[in-house]
Amino acid sequence: MFIQLHETPTTPPKKITKETIEEEMGALLKKLRELQTKLYAQSTQSLLIILQGLDAAGKDGVIKHLYTGINPQGCQIKSFKRPTVEEVAHDFLWRVHPHVPAKGMIGIFNRSYYEDILVPAVQKTLPQEVLHQRMQHINHFEALLQDEKVTIVKFFLHISAHEQQARINERKINPDKAWKFEPQDDLNLQQRALFTPVYEQLFEVCNEPEWIIIPADSKWYRNYLIVKELINALEGMKVAYPPKIIV
Amino acid sequence: MFIQLHETPTTPPKKITKETIEEEMGALLKKLRELQTKLYAQSTQSLLIILQGLDAAGKDGVIKHLYTGINPQGCQIKSFKRPTVEEVAHDFLWRVHPHVPAKGMIGIFNRSYYEDILVPAVQKTLPQEVLHQRMQHINHFEALLQDEKVTIVKFFLHISAHEQQARINERKINPDKAWKFEPQDDLNLQQRALFTPVYEQLFEVCNEPEWIIIPADSKWYRNYLIVKELINALEGMKVAYPPKIIV
Repeated sequence: MFIQLHETPTTPPKKITKETIEEEMGALLKKLRELQTKLYAQSTQSLLIILQGLDAAGKDGVIKHLYTGINPQGCQIKSFKRPTVEEVAHDFLWRVHPHVPAKGMIGIFNRSYYEDILVPAVQKTLPQEVLHQRMQHINHFEALLQDEKVTIVKFFLHISAHEQQARINERKINPDKAWKFEPQDDLNLQQRALFTPVYEQLFEVCNEPEWIIIPADSKWYRNYLIVKELINALEGMKVAYPPKIIV
Repeated sequence: MFIQLHETPTTPPKKITKETIEEEMGALLKKLRELQTKLYAQSTQSLLIILQGLDAAGKDGVIKHLYTGINPQGCQIKSFKRPTVEEVAHDFLWRVHPHVPAKGMIGIFNRSYYEDILVPAVQKTLPQEVLHQRMQHINHFEALLQDEKVTIVKFFLHISAHEQQARINERKINPDKAWKFEPQDDLNLQQRALFTPVYEQLFEVCNEPEWIIIPADSKWYRNYLIVKELINALEGMKVAYPPKIIV
């Protein structure tokens, strides 16, 4: 199914209220923590969470929220920023591979190798042919990880232009958020129209596993969906305590 | 072309003499060093040398010989031994990827990810299906590297059973070589018949680039062929000094 972002909601369905969700959240986080403990105890597989989204879509917020629930010793975060000189001197997956979570661990990628398609596609610094090649390399890389017991969950945090603008304006005004503002944020906002078709192409071509599009205008609904999806993923992985050793 | 090792020579052709080769070697090493300097100066691509072979086939000897010619600052060696606990907790390419040479560099793998097929195939610790999957992952990995400007040269050092036995006996007798002897060497010698068909399958399935089978009973001929092949590879890469910057 081809995902068209402008036809995909960014807000919660009307019938769902913040109050109901917040009541449910305690139990959901408890469930998530239990599943994570089993993953850690079992140590035969791992979970890789990929967070993508436009600027100000809420990637940092999602990570902070997850850390209210999970055991931080069983989880590692890697943020992918502009590549260093050493990273550029290697293939685009070179800087990623060492950060794939070990068996028993959850890994969170705040941005990922998908940036190595998005940015050159928008800035037109690589030919289409190379971008397509990279998409195939990503598919093979994700297949490798999945064959070797890494479950991958890919989230796209989907916010409206209006909400994105509001959050970037907030960064300019609010002294607690000003450190996050970079001059290119305004530019990226203009580039929203350029990023959208590239994302849509990625959803289409790099779809094993399929992307999960999270309506992300409301933080409470976004966090709720992500916790629910992670519970689903861990249940699908059949995490369980290893057999008791009797001595 | 299916390679059958028992039909592939392990010794030099009769018409080639050690004396002729040794006379030529100085010039060949000089040529290799010049090409390496261009690779380093250009810094747009890299060369990965993979050395495989049975125990005592001469992998260490090849590396020592190469270092009589090349500039050590432009070259890095990585030996792959039995995987550590941390390495086993990740996919089988996880420990390899960080050691792929950066642009401008030569990288030498003394053994490689091919061991992660050879050893479990011989010891029957992984099902055929997983071994086939791994071969495909290796093909995709090598395609990734080649698309990103890493030229790969894969050598199999081919020695006869007789020569292998002689070298392993030498390890037992000669005090300078005794440190290399491990009890499983004798076992591996018995396992020669088991490794051979797995290697032949690898030559067939993982063949982009194709394997270069080096007759390795004579060290001087083995070293000569390897230097010649590396010169060919670097010439094929069209290494060249970057344009002069006029200030």
